Amino acid sequence: MPEFDLVIRGGTVVTAADTVRCDVGVRDGRVAALAENLSDGKRVIDAGGLLVMPGGIDSHCHIDQLSSSGAYTADNWESGTRSGLAGGTTMLMPFAAQFRGQSLRQAVEDYHQLADGNALSDYAFHLIISDPTEAVLGQELPALIKDGYTSFKIYLTYDSLKLNDRETLAVMETARREGALTMVHAENHDVIAYLTDKLLAAGHVRPEFHRVAHADIAESEATARAIALSEVIDVPMLLVHVSAREAIEAIRRARGRGLRVYGETCPQYLFLTEDDLLQSGWEGAKCMCSPPPRDKANQEFVWNGLTDGTFQVFSSDHAAYRFDSPKGKFVGGFDDATASFKKVANGVPGLEIRLPMLFSEGVRTGRLSLNRFVELAATNAAKMYGVYPKKGTIAVGSDADIALWDPELTRTVSIDMLHDNMDYTPYEGRQVTGWPVEVLVRGETVFRDDDVIAPAGNGRFVPCEPPQMAKPLGRPIHGFSPTTGVFSGW
Amino acid sequence: MPEFDLVIRGGTVVTAADTVRCDVGVRDGRVAALAENLSDGKRVIDAGGLLVMPGGIDSHCHIDQLSSSGAYTADNWESGTRSGLAGGTTMLMPFAAQFRGQSLRQAVEDYHQLADGNALSDYAFHLIISDPTEAVLGQELPALIKDGYTSFKIYLTYDSLKLNDRETLAVMETARREGALTMVHAENHDVIAYLTDKLLAAGHVRPEFHRVAHADIAESEATARAIALSEVIDVPMLLVHVSAREAIEAIRRARGRGLRVYGETCPQYLFLTEDDLLQSGWEGAKCMCSPPPRDKANQEFVWNGLTDGTFQVFSSDHAAYRFDSPKGKFVGGFDDATASFKKVANGVPGLEIRLPMLFSEGVRTGRLSLNRFVELAATNAAKMYGVYPKKGTIAVGSDADIALWDPELTRTVSIDMLHDNMDYTPYEGRQVTGWPVEVLVRGETVFRDDDVIAPAGNGRFVPCEPPQMAKPLGRPIHGFSPTTGVFSGW
Amino acid sequence: MPEFDLVIRGGTVVTAADTVRCDVGVRDGRVAALAENLSDGKRVIDAGGLLVMPGGIDSHCHIDQLSSSGAYTADNWESGTRSGLAGGTTMLMPFAAQFRGQSLRQAVEDYHQLADGNALSDYAFHLIISDPTEAVLGQELPALIKDGYTSFKIYLTYDSLKLNDRETLAVMETARREGALTMVHAENHDVIAYLTDKLLAAGHVRPEFHRVAHADIAESEATARAIALSEVIDVPMLLVHVSAREAIEAIRRARGRGLRVYGETCPQYLFLTEDDLLQSGWEGAKCMCSPPPRDKANQEFVWNGLTDGTFQVFSSDHAAYRFDSPKGKFVGGFDDATASFKKVANGVPGLEIRLPMLFSEGVRTGRLSLNRFVELAATNAAKMYGVYPKKGTIAVGSDADIALWDPELTRTVSIDMLHDNMDYTPYEGRQVTGWPVEVLVRGETVFRDDDVIAPAGNGRFVPCEPPQMAKPLGRPIHGFSPTTGVFSGW
Amino acid sequence: MPEFDLVIRGGTVVTAADTVRCDVGVRDGRVAALAENLSDGKRVIDAGGLLVMPGGIDSHCHIDQLSSSGAYTADNWESGTRSGLAGGTTMLMPFAAQFRGQSLRQAVEDYHQLADGNALSDYAFHLIISDPTEAVLGQELPALIKDGYTSFKIYLTYDSLKLNDRETLAVMETARREGALTMVHAENHDVIAYLTDKLLAAGHVRPEFHRVAHADIAESEATARAIALSEVIDVPMLLVHVSAREAIEAIRRARGRGLRVYGETCPQYLFLTEDDLLQSGWEGAKCMCSPPPRDKANQEFVWNGLTDGTFQVFSSDHAAYRFDSPKGKFVGGFDDATASFKKVANGVPGLEIRLPMLFSEGVRTGRLSLNRFVELAATNAAKMYGVYPKKGTIAVGSDADIALWDPELTRTVSIDMLHDNMDYTPYEGRQVTGWPVEVLVRGETVFRDDDVIAPAGNGRFVPCEPPQMAKPLGRPIHGFSPTTGVFSGW
Repeated sequence: MPEFDLVIRGGTVVTAADTVRCDVGVRDGRVAALAENLSDGKRVIDAGGLLVMPGGIDSHCHIDQLSSSGAYTADNWESGTRSGLAGGTTMLMPFAAQFRGQSLRQAVEDYHQLADGNALSDYAFHLIISDPTEAVLGQELPALIKDGYTSFKIYLTYDSLKLNDRETLAVMETARREGALTMVHAENHDVIAYLTDKLLAAGHVRPEFHRVAHADIAESEATARAIALSEVIDVPMLLVHVSAREAIEAIRRARGRGLRVYGETCPQYLFLTEDDLLQSGWEGAKCMCSPPPRDKANQEFVWNGLTDGTFQVFSSDHAAYRFDSPKGKFVGGFDDATASFKKVANGVPGLEIRLPMLFSEGVRTGRLSLNRFVELAATNAAKMYGVYPKKGTIAVGSDADIALWDPELTRTVSIDMLHDNMDYTPYEGRQVTGWPVEVLVRGETVFRDDDVIAPAGNGRFVPCEPPQMAKPLGRPIHGFSPTTGVFSGW
Repeated sequence: MPEFDLVIRGGTVVTAADTVRCDVGVRDGRVAALAENLSDGKRVIDAGGLLVMPGGIDSHCHIDQLSSSGAYTADNWESGTRSGLAGGTTMLMPFAAQFRGQSLRQAVEDYHQLADGNALSDYAFHLIISDPTEAVLGQELPALIKDGYTSFKIYLTYDSLKLNDRETLAVMETARREGALTMVHAENHDVIAYLTDKLLAAGHVRPEFHRVAHADIAESEATARAIALSEVIDVPMLLVHVSAREAIEAIRRARGRGLRVYGETCPQYLFLTEDDLLQSGWEGAKCMCSPPPRDKANQEFVWNGLTDGTFQVFSSDHAAYRFDSPKGKFVGGFDDATASFKKVANGVPGLEIRLPMLFSEGVRTGRLSLNRFVELAATNAAKMYGVYPKKGTIAVGSDADIALWDPELTRTVSIDMLHDNMDYTPYEGRQVTGWPVEVLVRGETVFRDDDVIAPAGNGRFVPCEPPQMAKPLGRPIHGFSPTTGVFSGW
Repeated sequence: MPEFDLVIRGGTVVTAADTVRCDVGVRDGRVAALAENLSDGKRVIDAGGLLVMPGGIDSHCHIDQLSSSGAYTADNWESGTRSGLAGGTTMLMPFAAQFRGQSLRQAVEDYHQLADGNALSDYAFHLIISDPTEAVLGQELPALIKDGYTSFKIYLTYDSLKLNDRETLAVMETARREGALTMVHAENHDVIAYLTDKLLAAGHVRPEFHRVAHADIAESEATARAIALSEVIDVPMLLVHVSAREAIEAIRRARGRGLRVYGETCPQYLFLTEDDLLQSGWEGAKCMCSPPPRDKANQEFVWNGLTDGTFQVFSSDHAAYRFDSPKGKFVGGFDDATASFKKVANGVPGLEIRLPMLFSEGVRTGRLSLNRFVELAATNAAKMYGVYPKKGTIAVGSDADIALWDPELTRTVSIDMLHDNMDYTPYEGRQVTGWPVEVLVRGETVFRDDDVIAPAGNGRFVPCEPPQMAKPLGRPIHGFSPTTGVFSGW
Repeated sequence: MPEFDLVIRGGTVVTAADTVRCDVGVRDGRVAALAENLSDGKRVIDAGGLLVMPGGIDSHCHIDQLSSSGAYTADNWESGTRSGLAGGTTMLMPFAAQFRGQSLRQAVEDYHQLADGNALSDYAFHLIISDPTEAVLGQELPALIKDGYTSFKIYLTYDSLKLNDRETLAVMETARREGALTMVHAENHDVIAYLTDKLLAAGHVRPEFHRVAHADIAESEATARAIALSEVIDVPMLLVHVSAREAIEAIRRARGRGLRVYGETCPQYLFLTEDDLLQSGWEGAKCMCSPPPRDKANQEFVWNGLTDGTFQVFSSDHAAYRFDSPKGKFVGGFDDATASFKKVANGVPGLEIRLPMLFSEGVRTGRLSLNRFVELAATNAAKMYGVYPKKGTIAVGSDADIALWDPELTRTVSIDMLHDNMDYTPYEGRQVTGWPVEVLVRGETVFRDDDVIAPAGNGRFVPCEPPQMAKPLGRPIHGFSPTTGVFSGW
């Protein structure tokens, strides 16, 4: 057996299934061996007392992207990947967002230009489809899927993004035919728009009214509808950033009926509440995102969705806008006279604290096993989006994207300690136990001693395979398969 | 006490609450007394052995109306009310349907012209709103509500009728403000249109594919959505012609949460199944309606909705199109080469058999008490639509609209015995026990010995009051009342 | 028409279905006519501005009964019926309770001896079966059912009363065969006993721990189990004093499946909460009953059960023990050293305020229609227990048990104003609008101007018919009917 | 790195998380390395084209055990483990069953005597507690748990085994205190006994009536009750051999509320139906087990429980009684005159076909991923019962209990090809694709080319750790923790 480039010695290796003491041998950037007592390689890391876990995959984050509010994300590919690495995350899967009227291919190329040469860690892209024309669905999308863009997000809300039910059906039909995965932002647009108009008309402009406008019922309605549409098409689907109890229950019921309806949630639904929007001044804007944080009781339902398997994916939905910047939360700068929740840029940062907070509040409290943590941190996302087994696990042949965690290390979150490009964190002052102390990308140490040491351009684009989890069940609607035209009787 | 015009002697009087042996004294067309041993009036009816029940109210039927398919209802006001009377129904509540672009007031006047002077029994109108412009919602509708048109139906499907969610919210908001009741035809348009396109593209044109296109999931999705929208507005609402199990369960859950969500079902969901669409030739078209009859097991869920109170209203949704007429099921005449379920006029007749079949299969089987039968036949509709206590009961002061039923009379349904203007009945050959043998409108006998003896023009328009049941609960959405603009905190 | 003994003139007569202005003519103690402008009778009551409603039926109350704790009810037949009359209730249906080892017939005779000659208003008995031997179920019970004791209560908890599942099945089987109705006190005995032991062992003896011991889950478990057992037997059943959300939902689901599972709730679950047990000293004992008041949020679920029809019956479960009496709450007198919730007599008074509080909080808030109020006050109980149409309504031929209510009269509840034999009321200080101002039993005024003027012995025993609502559905268990032995295939 | 005793080369190694091509190095009976291109060891297995999976753990089976019907299992430790190996199962976890009155320790010693020296593969024991006296729960059980018997099964049915609710609470309390896991056979005894009596009284004695007696409702009731009891104690629990839709839904709801309620199902609920009991003669007895196979539609709900994670464990519940033996299905021999389902020994064989059938119908149809298959076959059981990571996975340090599967091998099941000691299989004639072709226990090949080559006594007893999954959540009942006595307020 040729010499290893690196041996990680004496740690506890954790995968989505296993927790074992063993050494890890790395060669050519990939895991080459898991074994007892490996002989030294060119380099050795002593992982004694540490957890050796797959680097996290943040499969839902917004990098170098213009928001529909006109704000621009604080983080570009350099700062975003840097922040991820410091938080144990070695791969990002942001979006290449199509504007209406734009070629999808063009959108992809534009986003590549921003990422390529700048990312510190590897990455892939989901597409955002806002204009599902025949050309887009019939030609561009199939070609892009072949090129490794095998998942796309659609919105049921936002003026510039929302698809109606017929468009949603068409997108899902394409996903089924091409083996891609549809991600759905499920909120009822008309309900939100109606409530927003009524709130503003009544002079309710402050941040907390964002939470009122984005009523739980807007989310649960749209979630149930998206599930229904996916059942018509007989295609798996992922509901992203699910927050409200009733939406969670709709997913659980759908899965209980055997449907491949997947769910994702985010730190803000576990660790923030609506009351965080009530801060004095306009500080509440720091915690505004869509869907918004719900009430305290709702957090328990989100946890239950994580513990019982209703959620497969845990992402940050990092959409970071600086509080004090003309391109930030208040586009053009804050003006007390005209400020309104409707104009505030939506989104919260979370790339870096996603995993430490889940570890601290999930694993250390006994809610989640270490293996479930790894599933949520990395493995499920890798499988969901077709980059497994290259990414998302520590297994022979996988990229040596590895985070070494000190499960006892306690730190207090502050914006100063974070590596992103933001001027605030919603979690300021939280005490968190369990942090990555060293992080590797393809076998190279890129983070250690609180320093990110990867060069810009270190990251590579990873094309995605059509995900196995997106395979249809083969259940016709009352005997009829709309995608094949076959009627087999009822 | 002055002499009665009529005494109905010796029958068993049934109301929604009570079943008692007593005489009924009628004066000036109204019930003047319920008593033991009334002295004879000018006229006496011996009701020995008979049930003396309120005349039925068919609160959902289509009379003298052009369908969106281009067909025209077989029944005009003369034949429709005649058929109703023969089936124990003394009041119809059809629709005055607005075309897009049309003034709502004009629609009402047009329909009055058809009805006034022609109806044999009393009637009121629901409106159909297909174009909820500001003028319509802001001016016409409030004025019409004051004039006695206090309920209106909206559609979530059909190209020429469907409202989107925002329009639905606007209509419901108006209903709340003006104290009117919104009736909702809840099927997801895009799902039906998508499935229809796919079915036709695959050559599946026969009647049974209508049932496939109108998937249960299209109904249950739209039902859940309509409930959500009504909860946003905090306004009661009635879901009409509910058929599918999941839709019924959605209503039950909503009511269990205290919402004033009402439900209506129809004979075709109790007494027909999807298999009736499979008849040879195109005979299946005779049983086509929307939503369509579901499977056999589904009937039991509809019955459960009737027995547990999930449904308050039982109507015919009589939408009768002749099978063999150029204005009937196949507009322009049947052409085997181009026939398709999409072109077939939707609707089944049921005005006359609605109550006998419910009596036979509901009361005589023990599923429904006599009082529950009366509730479903008349009382609840009267209360739901604001014509109670003038109509819908046998109580002092109420119009003497009365049906005398022989609960033991057995007849076999055939088109020949019916009094409508149709050339078929979907229930041909069914044996039914329990029939009205004499029917009175405002104290005058209008049906006896199988003869309808009311003159055209006997019927009068009955303006409706704003219904008590449409009162809002006063539940804000997370502390906010969109209709008042008040936010009371969460 | 012979002269009336009494004419009630000008009131608004309310039944479970109707609300009409008319006169009521009474002859020989029964309603003889409902009519416009009745000529005067021997006596006339001017009911202008008043609601003329059926006298209430309190179908669940404990009179002159020894509790399992050794306490004795404060109210005997004289004070109990007096208190009922003052609250608009004209009929009581208490219990004849069998001790283990006792003949059921003997129990009935014993209770008759207490009631007969002492009651001010009419009454019937439910049986309590604590010893369902073959002799009891095979001979005594059928004979008693024929004699007019057609409902019986069983307990799933209390050491001296509880039946196991097999005994419950046997009782239900008898109920099915004889057409009687089983009432079930559903709490899981072992759970309560276990928690009680643990609480006491930990020194938690105060009243609030009664509420902890009687956990919601104890009620919901036993409720679900009782429903399952009744489904095995295919027999209707009434769950009494239902309090917990999950229990309510279990009943709703059962009814939604078409089962004839009925539910009763009581004022204490609408108007008290667990926090009432936390009063200083041992005052909390005043609000102790089983099941106990739940939390504030739970009240809304109880209301929803009343509004959506999950509950058919609303009774007081009046089980009144004086606070300061050796036979009261603290048997033998209060001793701080040994006091424990386990020894406190369970039960709260409510006979007199049952209807005024329901009117005030139900009707006047818009939650309940007047007709629904009458259903809950009287009509449904009369039908449920087989005394309809003699009792429970205002209809020709019915006993003239009538309460005239002033819907605008506001009074503040205090123990001084009540007519029972208690030394406290849990509702002290509540402001209540809507009170009976005159009450009649069989046409005679028995309460007026806050005075009860009926003589002892005015009340008569009313034998009950086998209730229509207790008819089985005829649903075998997977094709097998255990009561007939017929297997019809699955 | 010292030489390996064995290298498995070129296979696809599958764990509950990962599917990777790599070699496996074995030393001293344990997995020592997972790596690319391992140099040859003392022995090499070419696994090209094969799946290298953890040997299965059948965590619910009955070996060398007397049934409550008086029958004796066909399989002893030699034949049982042999049959397991041939089916890819390398560890059995049968029961040491206490008779009432017997010392639990004695039961364990008795069963050890049967197993030790006879088993071909490793094993552990669950206890069966039928007599939870204070001595048993207070002393014997804690000592046994320390000795490695950390899970025990209780029964809610069977005359000689059933515990009442209070006993169940006591057992669960002990489980919580000692960190052990309670397994529950949840069927309502009284319901089954009642139906059985009624069936037999009506002359319904044949096998299919076993299925009627063991009504779905008996299972779902007891399941809900067991969940409630475990919630009172705040202790995780496993429901074994879950079959009925409603029971599955109860578990799902409980897990959705965050409870650690686990579920197990078995091949007979996926691959048999009630119709298999209808075979002519008494052949139906071959498919009798408790709970019984349900109807065809129910199978889909069981599958859904496997796909959505409601079930964690998939075992055979192998309880094999020969059809034609005086100690078999018909104890004392079949006698047509007196035969009755009540006397037939309950149970079906399944040890050997458990995994091949799950693979064939689960993995190859796309219902289950390979990783989920491994979870269900081995990993979850190992974790659930405290033998992980020694058993249940292929990871460095784990015992080299490995099954090599040919995923394309198709065989037709017949009793002749099976290795157990039975005279029938319920699955005769089924075509199954995917079979183990070579099986290793601790690195030694024990099955190859359809031959079991392990010697008796090859198997070792494996003491179990207190399972991590049995950790309580720390949720008091309305503020009270019965096991600590602490009340923290509501």
